Amino acid sequence: MTTVHAYAAPSADAPLAPSTIERRELGPLDVRIDIKYCGICHSDIHFTRGEWGPQEYPATPGHEIVGVVAEVGADVTRHAVGDRVGVGCMVNSCRDCENCAAGEEQYCLKGSTLTYGSKDRDGTITKGGYSTGVVVVEDFVVKVPEGISLQEAAPLLCAGITTYSPLRHWGAGPGKKVAVVGLGGLGHMAVKLAVAMGAEVTVLSQSLSKKDDGLRLGAKDYFATSDKQTFKTLRNHFDLIINTVSAKIDINALLGTLTLNGTIVNVGAPPEPLEIGVFNLFGNRRSFAGSSIGGIRETQEMLDFCAEHGIGADIELIEGKQINEAWERVLASDVRYRFVIDTATLTA
Amino acid sequence: MTTVHAYAAPSADAPLAPSTIERRELGPLDVRIDIKYCGICHSDIHFTRGEWGPQEYPATPGHEIVGVVAEVGADVTRHAVGDRVGVGCMVNSCRDCENCAAGEEQYCLKGSTLTYGSKDRDGTITKGGYSTGVVVVEDFVVKVPEGISLQEAAPLLCAGITTYSPLRHWGAGPGKKVAVVGLGGLGHMAVKLAVAMGAEVTVLSQSLSKKDDGLRLGAKDYFATSDKQTFKTLRNHFDLIINTVSAKIDINALLGTLTLNGTIVNVGAPPEPLEIGVFNLFGNRRSFAGSSIGGIRETQEMLDFCAEHGIGADIELIEGKQINEAWERVLASDVRYRFVIDTATLTA
Repeated sequence: MTTVHAYAAPSADAPLAPSTIERRELGPLDVRIDIKYCGICHSDIHFTRGEWGPQEYPATPGHEIVGVVAEVGADVTRHAVGDRVGVGCMVNSCRDCENCAAGEEQYCLKGSTLTYGSKDRDGTITKGGYSTGVVVVEDFVVKVPEGISLQEAAPLLCAGITTYSPLRHWGAGPGKKVAVVGLGGLGHMAVKLAVAMGAEVTVLSQSLSKKDDGLRLGAKDYFATSDKQTFKTLRNHFDLIINTVSAKIDINALLGTLTLNGTIVNVGAPPEPLEIGVFNLFGNRRSFAGSSIGGIRETQEMLDFCAEHGIGADIELIEGKQINEAWERVLASDVRYRFVIDTATLTA
Repeated sequence: MTTVHAYAAPSADAPLAPSTIERRELGPLDVRIDIKYCGICHSDIHFTRGEWGPQEYPATPGHEIVGVVAEVGADVTRHAVGDRVGVGCMVNSCRDCENCAAGEEQYCLKGSTLTYGSKDRDGTITKGGYSTGVVVVEDFVVKVPEGISLQEAAPLLCAGITTYSPLRHWGAGPGKKVAVVGLGGLGHMAVKLAVAMGAEVTVLSQSLSKKDDGLRLGAKDYFATSDKQTFKTLRNHFDLIINTVSAKIDINALLGTLTLNGTIVNVGAPPEPLEIGVFNLFGNRRSFAGSSIGGIRETQEMLDFCAEHGIGADIELIEGKQINEAWERVLASDVRYRFVIDTATLTA
């Protein structure tokens, strides 16, 4: 066992505080990573606050992990000491079911092992990346290519893959009109990625307050969903809509903006059910779908794609002692567009 | 103008009664059809009762029309006097938008002209197939191949194409597991068609009361949705679910039975919105979609497919004076599986 520095929440409603956690002995297929940076995802807050079910405390969140390989197990072949690597939302899966066999470990039929708050194979509860080190089995560690800074790469491990995967699966590319709903951590990545794939991208946001940003990121258009004219102007328009909003918004109005065979894919995770009027699906044979992160192979593909296109996240780098304030700002949507923790500052 | 016999509703809440209606003069591209049979669709009732919006009265429904060509306009090339033909839910569309150009006239962006209760190009309101004759532009008339009786072909024009189209679009065939929810007019056609396409078909019905029928139609399995064990047994099982139920059922429970990339397609049209828990879409990257009838080209393809596979609807043939009673029985789900009116009996 090795002890690492971390920030942890002692209970669902207490602030995070400096702490230490134990990482397991290195197994033959394990990689020990010195964590350099970890992004802050809205999920970290939901999870730690017990909003997605009861958790074990103290809890350390964080699943946008990047760092450098410090040590490898005897049988490791995929990574070497000194490699720049990343770990996303999963640290293991059953490796045996048909979805794992298809390289879609995020849909593991026995449930993938999440990076934090999940029961690990040895029965312990996983602890996340708000820490200075972690031990992960090599198959769930990806390489961060040269050409992306580690700190800008961190949010790619969740916000990046979560938007990249549905864009690829539903065929975003030249000749396709893609809308991104919500310009936050996920939304700003969806815009960058869809633009790099060659799609014509439109941002749909509650207001026009971030319009300059949206256009700078490469969007061709930017509309306010609070303006009813928007839905008339955009009727039967989009091939694909990536909805990043984790709140109960009007999906039926969005459905009307889809063209023949168009799909809305929710990557936002509102706790309440969403109401769908079936007649809105009948027109243009529309679909409403969901997508959850991406598989390991696709995560590597996404990182390589980002390096090739010079894409990183827009980040605000913070120290450990700013985490609680950063969480408040995430809840207030007051970040452009992702907080990233410099883990060298976690000791205080 | 020619006068034909018909049954018509004088108002939203009055029974249908014998009547006559006028059909337009034959234009150069029109076909006059002597109607032999017309199926009774649940939509006829919703429409005529004003449940899908106000109608003009007297109203004559019916969009599962089969008959024989009696006369053709000067420029008609696709049909000849004596041909066995059918007319489904549409009698025209704009012919100009991208969806019409793609042969998907049912998704015409300017709105297709429905067979009844729809404003026709000449400003009159269309009247349906509970009548002895109709005039339709040749492009919206399909051929009924030899090998299907006219009376068993009638329901194919709505119930047949409405289920055939999504089965084809979402790839039902060998190696695919397809569920059909609800064993009524649409459901029994969905089972026959999916079986003929080579899929492994399961019926999901509220109870097991029609199990013998389901298996006779070719289903491999039959489960009651009222039994909670059903949803455990079938977890992550189906590639495609065709939901024919026009009521607010538990879509979230059904979503759990879909395997990776599986889709529920609603062809049933409940008036209330359906509630979708987004987390049910995240698992296995599931979709909830809608589908509306099918295009003219695909309707012909469906009829040819049915002739090739010896498929017709299971029907109960009735006379005009039984229509009101038949409607009551449709509302009570008391028909196996489609009423078809012998239009020779409409005069009394």
